[in-house]
Amino acid sequence: MDNFRVEKDMLGEKKISNDIYYGINTLRAIENFNISKKSVNFELIEALVLVKKACALANKKLNQLDEKKADAIIEACNRILSGDFLDQFITNSLQGGAGTSTNMNVNEVISNIAIEILGGKKGEYNIVHPIEDVNMSQSTNDVYPTALRIASIGLLRKTSEAFSRLQDSLQDKENEFSHILKLGRTELMDALPIMVGQEFGAFARAISRDRWRLYKVEERLREVNIGGTAIGTGMNASQKYIFLVTDILQNLTGLGLSRSDFPIDTTQNMDVFVEVSGLLKSAAVNLIKMSNDLRLLGSGPKGSIGELIIPPVQTGSSIMAGKVNPVILEMIAQVSMKVIANDTAITLAASSGQLELNAFAPLIADSLLDSLNLLENGVNILNDKCIIDIKVDLEQCRSNLENSTALATALVHYIGYDRASEISRRAILENRTIKDIIESENLIDTALLKKILNPFTLTSPGIPGK
Amino acid sequence: MDNFRVEKDMLGEKKISNDIYYGINTLRAIENFNISKKSVNFELIEALVLVKKACALANKKLNQLDEKKADAIIEACNRILSGDFLDQFITNSLQGGAGTSTNMNVNEVISNIAIEILGGKKGEYNIVHPIEDVNMSQSTNDVYPTALRIASIGLLRKTSEAFSRLQDSLQDKENEFSHILKLGRTELMDALPIMVGQEFGAFARAISRDRWRLYKVEERLREVNIGGTAIGTGMNASQKYIFLVTDILQNLTGLGLSRSDFPIDTTQNMDVFVEVSGLLKSAAVNLIKMSNDLRLLGSGPKGSIGELIIPPVQTGSSIMAGKVNPVILEMIAQVSMKVIANDTAITLAASSGQLELNAFAPLIADSLLDSLNLLENGVNILNDKCIIDIKVDLEQCRSNLENSTALATALVHYIGYDRASEISRRAILENRTIKDIIESENLIDTALLKKILNPFTLTSPGIPGK
Amino acid sequence: MDNFRVEKDMLGEKKISNDIYYGINTLRAIENFNISKKSVNFELIEALVLVKKACALANKKLNQLDEKKADAIIEACNRILSGDFLDQFITNSLQGGAGTSTNMNVNEVISNIAIEILGGKKGEYNIVHPIEDVNMSQSTNDVYPTALRIASIGLLRKTSEAFSRLQDSLQDKENEFSHILKLGRTELMDALPIMVGQEFGAFARAISRDRWRLYKVEERLREVNIGGTAIGTGMNASQKYIFLVTDILQNLTGLGLSRSDFPIDTTQNMDVFVEVSGLLKSAAVNLIKMSNDLRLLGSGPKGSIGELIIPPVQTGSSIMAGKVNPVILEMIAQVSMKVIANDTAITLAASSGQLELNAFAPLIADSLLDSLNLLENGVNILNDKCIIDIKVDLEQCRSNLENSTALATALVHYIGYDRASEISRRAILENRTIKDIIESENLIDTALLKKILNPFTLTSPGIPGK
Amino acid sequence: MDNFRVEKDMLGEKKISNDIYYGINTLRAIENFNISKKSVNFELIEALVLVKKACALANKKLNQLDEKKADAIIEACNRILSGDFLDQFITNSLQGGAGTSTNMNVNEVISNIAIEILGGKKGEYNIVHPIEDVNMSQSTNDVYPTALRIASIGLLRKTSEAFSRLQDSLQDKENEFSHILKLGRTELMDALPIMVGQEFGAFARAISRDRWRLYKVEERLREVNIGGTAIGTGMNASQKYIFLVTDILQNLTGLGLSRSDFPIDTTQNMDVFVEVSGLLKSAAVNLIKMSNDLRLLGSGPKGSIGELIIPPVQTGSSIMAGKVNPVILEMIAQVSMKVIANDTAITLAASSGQLELNAFAPLIADSLLDSLNLLENGVNILNDKCIIDIKVDLEQCRSNLENSTALATALVHYIGYDRASEISRRAILENRTIKDIIESENLIDTALLKKILNPFTLTSPGIPGK
Repeated sequence: MDNFRVEKDMLGEKKISNDIYYGINTLRAIENFNISKKSVNFELIEALVLVKKACALANKKLNQLDEKKADAIIEACNRILSGDFLDQFITNSLQGGAGTSTNMNVNEVISNIAIEILGGKKGEYNIVHPIEDVNMSQSTNDVYPTALRIASIGLLRKTSEAFSRLQDSLQDKENEFSHILKLGRTELMDALPIMVGQEFGAFARAISRDRWRLYKVEERLREVNIGGTAIGTGMNASQKYIFLVTDILQNLTGLGLSRSDFPIDTTQNMDVFVEVSGLLKSAAVNLIKMSNDLRLLGSGPKGSIGELIIPPVQTGSSIMAGKVNPVILEMIAQVSMKVIANDTAITLAASSGQLELNAFAPLIADSLLDSLNLLENGVNILNDKCIIDIKVDLEQCRSNLENSTALATALVHYIGYDRASEISRRAILENRTIKDIIESENLIDTALLKKILNPFTLTSPGIPGK
Repeated sequence: MDNFRVEKDMLGEKKISNDIYYGINTLRAIENFNISKKSVNFELIEALVLVKKACALANKKLNQLDEKKADAIIEACNRILSGDFLDQFITNSLQGGAGTSTNMNVNEVISNIAIEILGGKKGEYNIVHPIEDVNMSQSTNDVYPTALRIASIGLLRKTSEAFSRLQDSLQDKENEFSHILKLGRTELMDALPIMVGQEFGAFARAISRDRWRLYKVEERLREVNIGGTAIGTGMNASQKYIFLVTDILQNLTGLGLSRSDFPIDTTQNMDVFVEVSGLLKSAAVNLIKMSNDLRLLGSGPKGSIGELIIPPVQTGSSIMAGKVNPVILEMIAQVSMKVIANDTAITLAASSGQLELNAFAPLIADSLLDSLNLLENGVNILNDKCIIDIKVDLEQCRSNLENSTALATALVHYIGYDRASEISRRAILENRTIKDIIESENLIDTALLKKILNPFTLTSPGIPGK
Repeated sequence: MDNFRVEKDMLGEKKISNDIYYGINTLRAIENFNISKKSVNFELIEALVLVKKACALANKKLNQLDEKKADAIIEACNRILSGDFLDQFITNSLQGGAGTSTNMNVNEVISNIAIEILGGKKGEYNIVHPIEDVNMSQSTNDVYPTALRIASIGLLRKTSEAFSRLQDSLQDKENEFSHILKLGRTELMDALPIMVGQEFGAFARAISRDRWRLYKVEERLREVNIGGTAIGTGMNASQKYIFLVTDILQNLTGLGLSRSDFPIDTTQNMDVFVEVSGLLKSAAVNLIKMSNDLRLLGSGPKGSIGELIIPPVQTGSSIMAGKVNPVILEMIAQVSMKVIANDTAITLAASSGQLELNAFAPLIADSLLDSLNLLENGVNILNDKCIIDIKVDLEQCRSNLENSTALATALVHYIGYDRASEISRRAILENRTIKDIIESENLIDTALLKKILNPFTLTSPGIPGK
Repeated sequence: MDNFRVEKDMLGEKKISNDIYYGINTLRAIENFNISKKSVNFELIEALVLVKKACALANKKLNQLDEKKADAIIEACNRILSGDFLDQFITNSLQGGAGTSTNMNVNEVISNIAIEILGGKKGEYNIVHPIEDVNMSQSTNDVYPTALRIASIGLLRKTSEAFSRLQDSLQDKENEFSHILKLGRTELMDALPIMVGQEFGAFARAISRDRWRLYKVEERLREVNIGGTAIGTGMNASQKYIFLVTDILQNLTGLGLSRSDFPIDTTQNMDVFVEVSGLLKSAAVNLIKMSNDLRLLGSGPKGSIGELIIPPVQTGSSIMAGKVNPVILEMIAQVSMKVIANDTAITLAASSGQLELNAFAPLIADSLLDSLNLLENGVNILNDKCIIDIKVDLEQCRSNLENSTALATALVHYIGYDRASEISRRAILENRTIKDIIESENLIDTALLKKILNPFTLTSPGIPGK
C-alpha cells in the first residue's frame, strides 16, 4: 500500500507508484496518447530541462523564487542533464495539447527530484510545486518552442558537420579520380566525355551548398520567445525576467540565442521550421540524386555500367551466390525519402496553426528532430562505409566510352554536324567504335585525331584539338 | 454608348459590353481572381450545363418553372453543349467561393442566351433570371459537386480506356519477346536470367491493375447530391423534384448516377475525390517505375545497358551529333510526377473542408480533372509513339547476360553455394564469363551445363538442369 | 573468452557474444544501418517467422529438408511467435538491401534456436544452417513482400474494426442529437439551420466509407509471391513446393491468401501498397476534417462558437487557470497528418523501384505498418476518450442560430430574395435577430412564421412552411 | 501549294505552313507532347530569347559568327522581346527532353525571323541556321537552366514586392487596431486578452520573413552555367566566349548574374530550385495560416466569432439571401495549396536527375514559374481586395472577451490559481462573466480590478495590476 501515492487534478485522483518521478498530468497524458512506442525525442527533453534551469536561475535572481527551492530545482535539472531519469520522459511524440504534456512531464519530474533533494517525498508539492515553482513565469507556449529551437540548433550543427565531412571525402575523390576519362551521359544516353573526378566534383559542390544552407539557417532559429508566456504578450512574466532569462539561456547554451522582439509572432508562427525542413529536403534531393548516380555507375558488376566499385559491407543475397548490393546507398536514399516525408508532416502541421498558437507543434518537433537525427547519422555512415572507399573500374570506363557515340561531337568542328551524325549512326548499326570508323576510313589525320581525343581537351572548354 | 449594358448587384453597378453573355457576378469573379491564365476546365462547364438542363426539365415538369422559360433555358444549354460560347466561361480555376462564380457564370450565360432566344436583349433578366429561373431549386453546393462527379466519370472512362490500350500493347510485347533471354537485375546488380517478354509481362500486369482500379472507382463517384441545395438538407427543393431531377440527369448522362441517401455528407465530404486521386497516384507510380526501367534498359545506345531500342521521335540535341533521347518516356514520367503533385493539392484541399461545405472544391476540381486529362493523353501518346515500336538489341542482351554473374546461382545446386560464390568473384576479377570458367575448368559436364543453361529452365520454377 | 563465438562471411570474421541468437549478417546490418533507434516493426517479424514456418513445413513434406531439422525450425518459429526473443530482432527500419538484413536476422535467430533445440551450440550451423536450411527454397525477395502483406492484412483488419466502432459511436450521436437545431455554416459563414444529429450523421457516413474501403482493399494484399524466389521466376523452387507452401501459409494465417499468377510482377511492383496507403490517406482526410469541425464547434467554451462540449481528459495549461483543450482531437489530427506524410514516403519509395526489385521495400513496410498502427490506436482512443462523451450546449446552439442570418433564406419564398437579403443586412447592422425584425414589423403572419421556423421543416427537403 | 514549305530532319520530312515561324523540330515536339493546353511559360521564352541575343553578341564580337547574321539574329530577338510572335512558342510545358524542344522552338523562330530580315524566305536555313548560327556555342543544357534562372529572378522580385506591399498593409492594420482589446485563443479555446493590432502585427512579421527570404534567395539563382554546353565541361565553347557571354548577359538583364565556377554541377543539380520552392512553401504556409485566421475571426457575421469584418467583393450564394463569403481569403489559400503541390512536383523532378543532366527540368520550370506567378498575383489581390479594407466589429470583440474565461488568468496573482480556476468553471456553468462574479462577490477591490483589467497591462509583459 505504501508503494503508491495519490495525486489529484481537476478531473479527479490517480494512484501513482512511488518509483515514478512524474505525476498525475504525465500519467493522464500517457493514457490519452497511447498510440505508439515513440516517445518525445530526448534532445527536446534536454533542451526543456535547460530552459527550466535558466528560468529557475532568473526567478531566483529576481527573488521571485525562494533560493532553497531554486537551488533544488537547478540541481534536479543538472541530474537529468547528466543522463539519469531518461526513463521518466515518456509522453508520446504525437500528443495533443501543443506540448503541454511534455512540459508537465518535465515539470513534474524536476519537482519530485527537487523534493527529494530537499528531504521530502515524491508528491509533496508544497515543498516544490511543478507549476508554481518549476514552471514559474512560464507557459508551455514559450518554453516548448524555445526548447525546440535549442534542440534543433544542436542537431543542425552536428548534421552540418556530417555534410562537411562528406564534402571533404567527395573532394578527395575528385582529386583521386581527376585523370580518369569516362563517358558522360545525359538523359541516360551517351553524351560527351568527362573525368570521373569531375563527376565527384559536381557531387561535392551540391553537398557543399547543403552544408552552407544548414550552417546559415541556424540564425533563423536563434530567436526565442521565452518570456512571452501563453500567447506572447508576456502576461505574468516581468520585463526584467524576460531580459534576464534570455541572457542566462544564452550563457547556458552558448548558442547565440536572442530574445524575439515580437513574441506573439514567434509563439504562433511555425514558418521557420518549414524553412529549415525545406532546406533539409534540398539536401535530401541531392543525396537521392547522388546515391542513385553512384548505384547506376556501380551497377553490374559486369552486366551493366560497372564504372565504379562500391565497397561491399555485407552479403547481398540469401539465394544468389556472391551477390553484393549497394546497401549503404540504398539506406541514404531511404533516409532522404523519409526526410521528404517528414517535410510533408511539418508543412501540414505548420499550415494548420490557428490564431495565437499552433496546436500541432509536437508533430513539427518530432518530424524535424527525426529528420536531423537521420541525416546526421545517415550521412556519417554514407561517408565512412561507402564514399571514402569507392574505387574506379578503369577498364569498364574505357570500354564504355569507346563503345559509345560520345566522341562524335568532338569531331563536328572537323567533319561537320551532318557527317558526325552519320558516323554516329553507323557506329551503332555496325557495332563499331567511332574511333575505329574514323581511323579505318582516314577521315581525320592521325596526329590531329590524337590531339582531339586528348582527355583534358575533351573535358574542358574549347574545341577539342584546337 | 449602346454597346454597354448596366448590371447591378448588392455591391453596386457594372458596365458590361453587349457582346458578352455573362453578367455582373462573372465580371466581379474575373476581377477578384485574376491570378493566372487558367480558367475552369471545360469538362466541368459542360457537366454543369448538363445539370442545368436537367434541373430546367424537372422544374418544368413539376410546373415550378414557366414552360416557355424552361424551353429557352434548355435550348440555351443545348447550344452551349454543341460547342458554342466556349469563350464565355472564363472564371479562374483557383477561384474562392466553393464554385459559386463558376455556377453564376453558367447561370448568367444560359440566361442571356435564353433571353435572346425569347427575343429579349441581354440583361433583361425579367425574361429569364439567372438565379430565380436558371438556378431554380439549386445551390452551387449541390450542382457543383454533382457536375464534378459527372465530369470526372467521363474522363475516368477515357483514361481507363487509355490504360487498357497500353496493357494490350505491353502484352503484345510480352509475346513478341517471350523467347529472348536477358539479364535480370535486383538493386541494379546482376541477379538471375529473365526473358525480355517476362519483363513486359510484369509491366502489363501493373498497368492492368491500374485499369481495373480506374474502372472500379467510378462507382464511388456515381452518387450525386443534386437536390441537397445549400447544405444538403434540401431546403427550398421539393422531395418530388429531387427524385425527378436525378432520374433526368441519369438519362441525360447515361452514367448510372444515383441520388445520395444523405446529401449533407456528400455536400461537405470530399474523401471520394481523394480516393480517386490516390488511385491515379498508384497509376503514376507504375508509370514512373516502368518508364524509368525502359529508359534504363534503353540507355546507351552503346555505352550503357542498351538492351532495348526506344523508338526515336525527334532529334535529341542541339549540340551532340546523332543523339536521340527517350523523350516520350520522360514526358510520361513528368505527367506522373504532376499527377502526384496534384494529389498533394487534392489532399490539402479536401482535408481543409469545414463544417457544411468545402470551400476549396475548385482546387480539387482543377487538380483532379487536370490529372485525368494528362494521364489520358500521356498514356495514349506513350502507347502510340513509344511502346508499340520498342525493339530489342539481341546482341546486347546476350553479351550483358554472359558478362554478368547471373548464371552463378544456377550452378549452386551442382557445385554448392560457396564454390559458386567463389567463381562469381573470380569472373569479376579476371574479367571472364562464368561459363568460360566452368568450361575451361571442366567443373560441370558439358551436356549438363547446356541443360542448365537452357533459357526456359533458367526462367521458370525449379532447379535449372533438373 | 568462452562468452564469444566467431562467425565468418565473405567479408571476414566477427566475434559474437554467446548470449545473442543472431549471427554475423545481422551484426553487420546493425553496424551498417545505425541511423536511429527504430527497428523493424514487430508485426513484420512475426509474419516473416510465420512464412519461415510454412516453408519448413513444405520443405519437410517434400523431403527437401531433413525431418529433424524441419521440426527444430518449426519449434523455433513457435517459440518466437509465443513472444520470446523479441530483443533479438533489431535491424534498423530504414536498412538498405530490400529487406535482406531483416530476413537474415530472422534466419539466424531461428537457426540458433533450432540448433539449441537439437542440442548444439549457437553458431554450429552444420546442425541447422540459416541459409541452406531455414531459407531453403526462398529469397528475401519473395518472403519479405509476402510477410509484409500478411502483416498489413492483420493490421488492416484491426484498423477497419476501429473505424467500425467509431462509426457506431457517431451514429449513436446522430440519434442522440437528432432533435437539436443549430446553425449550419458554409465557408464559415451563417448558412442554413441543421440538426446537430445531421452533422454527426455526415461524419458517420464519411467514416463508414473509410471502413468499407479498408475492408475491401484487403483482397489486393492477399496475392503473395512466395515461391518466386529472387526475381519471381521461381529459380531453385520447385513447382510442387510453390503450390504447397501457399496452401500451408493460407492455413497458418487463415487470411485467404492466394498464389500470385505472375510473381515477377508481384516481386517488383509496389503499387498495391500505394493503393492501400492512398486509402489510409483518404481516411486521414476525413479524420482531419471531422476533428477540425469538432474543435471548431467546441471552441470557447464561451468566447467562440461553443456549441459542443468536448469531454475534458487532462488539464490544459500550465499557466491559464481552468483551461481545457481538445487534446484527443489534436492527437488524431496529428496522427492523420503523419499518415499523409507516410504516404509521401511510400509513394517515393514505390516509384523508385528498378527492374526486377524495389530496393526501398523497407521504407514502404515501415511507413505502411506505422500508419496502420497509428490509425488503429488513434481512432480507438478518439472513440473512447472523446466521441462517446461529447455533449451539446443547447443554449449556445440556440443563441448562435437566432443571432445568425440563417433564417433569411427560409423566408425567400414569402417575401422574395431581395427583401430577405435586405432584412439579413439590417439584422447585421442593427444587431437584431431576423425573427425580431419580422415580428416587430409584422412581415409574416405569426402562425405562418411559426410553421416556417419549425425545426424539422427547416432541415429537410421542401420549402419551409409549405 | 505555295503555302507550305518542306523541312527535313534525321527522321524524315514535314510540310510546314508558311505562316509559321517555327520549324520541323518544334512541329515534332507539338505532336509528341500533345498532352494539355498548357504551353511553356512566356517568362521562360523571353529569358531564352535574351540568352540567344547575348550569345549572338558574344559570337559576333569574337568573330565566330558572321556580323550580318548576328545582327539579324539580334534584331529577331528584339522583335520577339517587344511582344510579337507570342503565338509561335507553343511546345508543351511537360515536354520530354530536358527543354530541347523549347530551345529548338526558340532557335527556329529566331532563325526564320532573321532570314526574313535578311530578305530570305522561311526555311532557307543556309541564310541563318537555327543550330549552327542561332545556337552557336550553346547547348540546351546550358541555355535552358540559365534562362530559367533569369526568369525566376524576375518573378521572384515581383513576388517579393507583392509580399512587401502586404507587409505594409498589415502593419497599417497593426497601428489602426492597436487599441482594440479582444480575446486571444490557443487551441481555439479562450486564452488571454490581446489587441487586434497585435494579431495583425504577428501576421506582418511572418510575411516580413517571407519577403526577406524571397529577397535573399535570389543570390542562389544568380550563378549561371552558360558556356558549359552539353554537360558543363564547355566542349565546343571557347574560354573567351564563356567570360564574354556572361558579361553581356549581366548587362542585358541587369540582374547581377555570375559565371558558375563549376558548370558541371550547375548543369546537373537542381537543388537550388528546390530551395527556392521550399521558401515559397514557407510563404504558402504563412498565407494559409493567416487566411484561415482571418476567415475564422470574420466567421458569422453574427452566428460565429465575427470579430473582423472581411470586405465583401461579390455575392456569396445563388440561394442564400444576403450571404457574403470571404472569397479572396479562400483564393489565396488555394493558391498556397497549389504552391505546396508544385513543391511536390519540383522535389520529385529534382531528385530524379541522373548523372550529367536532369531530364525533368521542364517540370521544374513549369512548377516554379507557376508558383511565382500565382503568388505574385494572389498576394497583390489579397492585399488590394481584402487586407486594406478589413474592419473590426468592436461590439463582438468586447462581448466575446467578456463572455470568455480569458480574464481568469489575470486574477491568479490575487486570488490564486485554484480559486481562479473555480471561478472560471462557474462562469461557464452559470453562463456569467468572470467580471460579474468577481464584482458581485466583491472578491477584488473595484479600483484594483479596474487596474487589472486595463487593456494595456493585460496585453504586455508583467503581472496585470502591478
